[in-house]
Amino acid sequence: MAIEKERPETERPDTFIRDADEAASGKSIRARFEKMIREAQDSICQAIEAADGGGKFKEDVWSRAGGGGGISRVLQDGGVWEKAGVNVSVVYGTMPPEAYRAAKGDNSATKAGHVPFFAAGISSVLHPKNPFAPTLHFNYRYFETDAPKGVEGAPRQWWFGGGTDLTPAYIFEEDVKHFHTVQKKACDKFDPEFYPKFKKWCDDYFVIKHRSERRGLGGIFFDDLNGYDQEMLLSFATECASSVIPAYIPIIERRKDTPFTDQHKEWQQLRRGRYIEFNLVYDRGTTFGLKTGGRIESILVSLPLTARWEYDHQPEEGSEEWKLLDACINPKEWI
Amino acid sequence: MAIEKERPETERPDTFIRDADEAASGKSIRARFEKMIREAQDSICQAIEAADGGGKFKEDVWSRAGGGGGISRVLQDGGVWEKAGVNVSVVYGTMPPEAYRAAKGDNSATKAGHVPFFAAGISSVLHPKNPFAPTLHFNYRYFETDAPKGVEGAPRQWWFGGGTDLTPAYIFEEDVKHFHTVQKKACDKFDPEFYPKFKKWCDDYFVIKHRSERRGLGGIFFDDLNGYDQEMLLSFATECASSVIPAYIPIIERRKDTPFTDQHKEWQQLRRGRYIEFNLVYDRGTTFGLKTGGRIESILVSLPLTARWEYDHQPEEGSEEWKLLDACINPKEWI
Repeated sequence: MAIEKERPETERPDTFIRDADEAASGKSIRARFEKMIREAQDSICQAIEAADGGGKFKEDVWSRAGGGGGISRVLQDGGVWEKAGVNVSVVYGTMPPEAYRAAKGDNSATKAGHVPFFAAGISSVLHPKNPFAPTLHFNYRYFETDAPKGVEGAPRQWWFGGGTDLTPAYIFEEDVKHFHTVQKKACDKFDPEFYPKFKKWCDDYFVIKHRSERRGLGGIFFDDLNGYDQEMLLSFATECASSVIPAYIPIIERRKDTPFTDQHKEWQQLRRGRYIEFNLVYDRGTTFGLKTGGRIESILVSLPLTARWEYDHQPEEGSEEWKLLDACINPKEWI
Repeated sequence: MAIEKERPETERPDTFIRDADEAASGKSIRARFEKMIREAQDSICQAIEAADGGGKFKEDVWSRAGGGGGISRVLQDGGVWEKAGVNVSVVYGTMPPEAYRAAKGDNSATKAGHVPFFAAGISSVLHPKNPFAPTLHFNYRYFETDAPKGVEGAPRQWWFGGGTDLTPAYIFEEDVKHFHTVQKKACDKFDPEFYPKFKKWCDDYFVIKHRSERRGLGGIFFDDLNGYDQEMLLSFATECASSVIPAYIPIIERRKDTPFTDQHKEWQQLRRGRYIEFNLVYDRGTTFGLKTGGRIESILVSLPLTARWEYDHQPEEGSEEWKLLDACINPKEWI
């Protein structure tokens, strides 16, 4: 896949949709998805700043000559958060015909050239300072391919992906329960099968394979989702994005000022090291972004400000650190 | 490729070579290479402990049921080094016939099953505390495949790989010059083409592609080396391993007690973050080890104790930090 190099912009445009008619009418799923993720970025950043009580987001706007662009917002070294990034992006690119055929699931359009694609998403990782306050990650994205040029009647493809997951260094049952309950409520509004299905998908996805452990305590995750009504999935993604604040901020309020020792901090730093291992070695969005020329600073804002690797660290059996590790190795039902 | 799970051992065996006759005679290249890397591990660990003036290496010995094993030594939180790992390993495994054919360079032995291989190596990363004292990495390895079973007359394959490279956070010209001069001297004893060739190979290998910068200031690197006399290459690898102490310890002695500020330390931590990006995303040994079930704690001992990622950090043009970054982007001739 190929995308162009980005350039900085001094002002936020109303939209990154490149087709003027499409942008003006605002009716396409792409235009409505962009509107949704930009509103979510605004409201979530506002809630984070309010809870942080001091830190302010720094904003970078960027665009690409061929269309598309993004808004990266980062709050660094705040009152509550060590590093909090909330990015939106709208990307136009091309993919090789093989990738298109794989997405399409058949081999009919074999003579096509590179296939234009559109991808829009909101992506965020929030790393607090206090070792008892969990890291949160969420990402909601919409993907569309044009029909290949010169192949009449070839279908467009579209799909939704995303999820929200929680990564604490220490387990507070009520926090994890609250978090998963909010995810389940959002899912249940659309399909009773969503929560169990997407909870398992999340547990299966965030595995650090070389350690046979997950990076955290999960949540929901889905990808390549197109087997449902498109309007329904747009509403579902919107509901999930709206659930980020009620799922996360109450936990932060409870834990942000909890007293802690150097040992608690070191364990948090070791878990941050595991977070980095997952993101750099396995995370599809990160590895895809690094290899296709995405905006590096936006992609790697997911990494914590600081992390730690000790040789052969083993928490004592039965300790609070051990309990967290056990739950990362053997995923639990929290509700 | 497949290798078995390792098990801890309470004592160091005299050799990890599994064939008793081969081990007893000690004449094979494999047996002599193992002896060389184990002696290098002893002498280098001794020199590190002496320079550290307090820290002691912790040793873990491990073996595999089918033969082979290793000795991992780690000094953590010493007087001079934050984390210093010096490992040797001897591995017996099998590779798919495609990998063997690729190594062999022709397609004659097509009906073969999995091909047994032997790999032995010493690998080390030394991360000092003082931001003016550089990180050192070196690795020397010998690789051999058996002839595939049932394919008479199929040739064995063998090759050497390795290198030594320096990663400072700040440039002291005399240090980098001294380091490269020692590498060149080791190379020049064998072939005047070695240093320029392996210096360039090193500059080309340690690139963090998504940033278009190298992790450090290079040294020498070579891989798949078999186009020379096997005895000569064994001597060359021995010479390179013997050059580690004279190349590195004088630099450490000069820099280990240099006063520094929090800002110097933060820059060192940012460069350690880049080191992690290279190792987890690009380094062949690391990514190969993570995917084939190598001993995780031995593989990841290369990661520094602590590291840092700031959003969009840009050193001021002309500053000492900028000079280092510039040399990582545009590799220089140091001698």
